Amino acid sequence: MTQTNRAWILARRPAASHPLEACFELTESPVPELSDGEVLVRNHFLSVDPYMRGRMDDVKSYAEPQALGAVMQGGTVGVVVRSRNPRFAEGDAVVGRMGWQEWGVSDGTGMGRVDAHRIPLSAYLGVAGMPGITAWIGLKHLIEPKPGQTVAVSAASGAVGSVVGQLAKAMGCRVVGIAGGAEKCRMVTQEFGFDACIDYKAGGLDAALKAACPQGIDGYFENVGGPTLDAALRRMNAFGRIAVCGLIAGYNGEPIPVNNIRSILVNRLRMQGFIVTEFPKLWPVAQAELVEAVAAGSLRYHETVAQGIAAAPSAFTALLRGGNIGKQLVKLV
Amino acid sequence: MTQTNRAWILARRPAASHPLEACFELTESPVPELSDGEVLVRNHFLSVDPYMRGRMDDVKSYAEPQALGAVMQGGTVGVVVRSRNPRFAEGDAVVGRMGWQEWGVSDGTGMGRVDAHRIPLSAYLGVAGMPGITAWIGLKHLIEPKPGQTVAVSAASGAVGSVVGQLAKAMGCRVVGIAGGAEKCRMVTQEFGFDACIDYKAGGLDAALKAACPQGIDGYFENVGGPTLDAALRRMNAFGRIAVCGLIAGYNGEPIPVNNIRSILVNRLRMQGFIVTEFPKLWPVAQAELVEAVAAGSLRYHETVAQGIAAAPSAFTALLRGGNIGKQLVKLV
Repeated sequence: MTQTNRAWILARRPAASHPLEACFELTESPVPELSDGEVLVRNHFLSVDPYMRGRMDDVKSYAEPQALGAVMQGGTVGVVVRSRNPRFAEGDAVVGRMGWQEWGVSDGTGMGRVDAHRIPLSAYLGVAGMPGITAWIGLKHLIEPKPGQTVAVSAASGAVGSVVGQLAKAMGCRVVGIAGGAEKCRMVTQEFGFDACIDYKAGGLDAALKAACPQGIDGYFENVGGPTLDAALRRMNAFGRIAVCGLIAGYNGEPIPVNNIRSILVNRLRMQGFIVTEFPKLWPVAQAELVEAVAAGSLRYHETVAQGIAAAPSAFTALLRGGNIGKQLVKLV
Repeated sequence: MTQTNRAWILARRPAASHPLEACFELTESPVPELSDGEVLVRNHFLSVDPYMRGRMDDVKSYAEPQALGAVMQGGTVGVVVRSRNPRFAEGDAVVGRMGWQEWGVSDGTGMGRVDAHRIPLSAYLGVAGMPGITAWIGLKHLIEPKPGQTVAVSAASGAVGSVVGQLAKAMGCRVVGIAGGAEKCRMVTQEFGFDACIDYKAGGLDAALKAACPQGIDGYFENVGGPTLDAALRRMNAFGRIAVCGLIAGYNGEPIPVNNIRSILVNRLRMQGFIVTEFPKLWPVAQAELVEAVAAGSLRYHETVAQGIAAAPSAFTALLRGGNIGKQLVKLV
């Protein structure tokens, strides 16, 4: 009996004339037969991530735009159902980039086996996957905080931010988060153990950040941009480091002016944009450490899980509006 | 016979209610007698530099503000007239920080002998002094361009910018300057040998920069900020480096919003503010190379020279308005 695969394709580019969710179309097609060297994977979880918004536009960026008419790209975890590839066996838990669909066929490129007994399979898309590794590299490789220094992070309740703070805390730093809403801030301090969290939606961001960072900020991990970047720039200490991981505030193309650039000169800051995939040598080091910490219970995480393939676009747009706490996933199985 | 020393003190802070020159007052006092260990220097040239504007404000910055009622701080070159310090003899040419005055007394701290036969004394305040070393460190230590890459620099006809471009050209780079006015641009290309120079006052900065940098910009040396920084950000290549040396566009406290911060993420840029005095180990290496190049005639420079101590404030304010080409000096002897 032929299985049916449901997949979301990018049918049109984002535009002001239609809602973002109208960019996607759900298609159905038979699960294909395997050729030699291929494996068939049943995807258990899809990842939806902020970076995907950037790829939907047909503009120059660090990655090729998502092609129109093709399955939306994205990270997945799942289980090998059939294999004609000697590297993978039926039943293997695997992480890969199968995209927004229920089933995936791969020649194994970029796919890796993971240990789903040690930590849950879904964690390889979040705390122990790309977002966690992003946090690790931005913090440990670019910000390089010293014990006693103050580290601040925006989108602090998210998949990346929550790991940044916990890793910095384990390094002996004072850790201050910025998040949207009282519920997220409560989670950031109570679940993730940050010293403080500022609700930017409550107003008074500058004053709150000053109060929460009495010694200034030595390292800032930016996921948002715009007003939060300005607020952080105002509090940076001499020789501070800013890792720019995301600028979600500007994903819809609106300008996000920054006013406090002078701080870069006055405080001799180093501000660096980075993409996690460009540090392949650090990836296994970071992932091993993250898996270990999750298994030991010292690194906590939270997931917001949407149910079923049909929910992928709404889960994605909710993520862009900040509707998630921790890693936003779509559960298929 | 007692000599009279004329000195400019900072009498009041900058404010919208009075012109900048009204901040200064010229005072007269007898040249003091020397104590043991001191030297008396007749200043031949004073340096006026953009950084001085920042120190006139009583705000937190990398250096203490200029004290009210004290002689304006600044670099000087001169000749030792009397010495009660074994490190210096009468007739020694010296570079130091005697400030805006005709005579200076020093215990020798921060003062150094220079060879005024090899290159002119005034060059130690410009091309072979602090501005030249600033250019050297920003370019070679922070931007680190490779042969064939494109380097752009703002305030390209100035004491720092003109050296940045010549050093980058000697490293095999394509070099593009940004300067204000046709006369400055002519000097930048014809005297300093840049491949191109854009007159930002002529309008169309973005299009002109695109045309002058067909391969994009790999290294950008920023002296100005505001619209020139935005224009450069728009043209930066992946993994480009931006050295922020000055933001003269905002010296009067007006906000200088930057709109193209997204380029830092998309292009994984490294943007770093720096202060030349914080690289003491590089200073002698840089200075030796600069003196050598000036003596050999391979590194050219231009000076705009105001005559007499009375001209110091007007020379300084002219500098801030961009009235100079190359190093702005005040000649006393």
